[in-house]
Amino acid sequence: MSNRHPIPHDAQMVFKGVIFEVWQWQQELYDGTTATFERLRRPDTAEVIATIGGQIILIEQEQPDTKKPFIGLPGGRCDRNEAPLVAAQRELKEETGYVSDNWELFHEVSPVGKIEWTVHTFIARDCRVDAEPSLDGGEKIKMRLVSFDAFLDLADLPEFQSRDLSLELLRAKYDPAAKERLHTAIFGA
Amino acid sequence: MSNRHPIPHDAQMVFKGVIFEVWQWQQELYDGTTATFERLRRPDTAEVIATIGGQIILIEQEQPDTKKPFIGLPGGRCDRNEAPLVAAQRELKEETGYVSDNWELFHEVSPVGKIEWTVHTFIARDCRVDAEPSLDGGEKIKMRLVSFDAFLDLADLPEFQSRDLSLELLRAKYDPAAKERLHTAIFGA
Repeated sequence: MSNRHPIPHDAQMVFKGVIFEVWQWQQELYDGTTATFERLRRPDTAEVIATIGGQIILIEQEQPDTKKPFIGLPGGRCDRNEAPLVAAQRELKEETGYVSDNWELFHEVSPVGKIEWTVHTFIARDCRVDAEPSLDGGEKIKMRLVSFDAFLDLADLPEFQSRDLSLELLRAKYDPAAKERLHTAIFGA
Repeated sequence: MSNRHPIPHDAQMVFKGVIFEVWQWQQELYDGTTATFERLRRPDTAEVIATIGGQIILIEQEQPDTKKPFIGLPGGRCDRNEAPLVAAQRELKEETGYVSDNWELFHEVSPVGKIEWTVHTFIARDCRVDAEPSLDGGEKIKMRLVSFDAFLDLADLPEFQSRDLSLELLRAKYDPAAKERLHTAIFGA
């Protein structure tokens, strides 16, 4: 999926940080005047809905700066020139030690209008242990297995960051047909 | 509400753009090493659930750069040192020409983990026309009145950016008790 709000071709990069790039361009307005417009670019991220039997892998992690634990899917930043699927496979293995032979794209969303940034969400079915997790110095992660119903409850956690996924989960929680569709998408027919 | 992930006090501003500031700091990691961490700050925004009788004001707008029309609530950026409520009142009047004497805070959310940015959502009940809208050169806006039920349908629009509000709307759509609570919150008891 292309980004909803791509940075125009004539934009200039005015700053490059460790995560974010800042881009600006001169934009003609409706009244014929121009103004400096600004948008950001950041590396895409990949996250994984990983299943083991009828359960789904969640990770509980905290960041070195905030120290508040939060629950989410395994995943992380795509490295430069790394395909999102490869990033998803690498992050799942690094964070949990699990691998899968059965991958599928679930959805791709660009959650913030002013940031060229796509979140690629994959499904990894029937995962199996391949190695010990290999965390870097900035990660503190615990793995947790939850039922499909407990997975749907993520929509009610204010700190669960994937709001587009939350909307899917909430629909499934309330609408039996949506629940059936989501269950099939995740676990296979 | 304080921001979930505030920028630490010892961070340095390394770039200031027209909307975004980039801040960095040295963060000690779990293994004792340090790394440069980065976070953004941008002006808070204020948006308004504005009612007229049993209806709610939506605005259909397009941006000069993307040209794709999208539907949302009246609102915009808080000016420097402008209280969110004052910004909400100003934006509602500028974009629609409507004013209200009955304002209430609905919720405050920080939608993006790495950005110090709060969206303040207000309710403005029983709005009345006060003036013509006064749009600036970067705005192209049409006002639309919708029923409460049509308002709940915003949750199904992928381009509706307020995903935290979408979650509230979706709950109200499916759960009669949540619908009753939201109706009372918006229109009053």
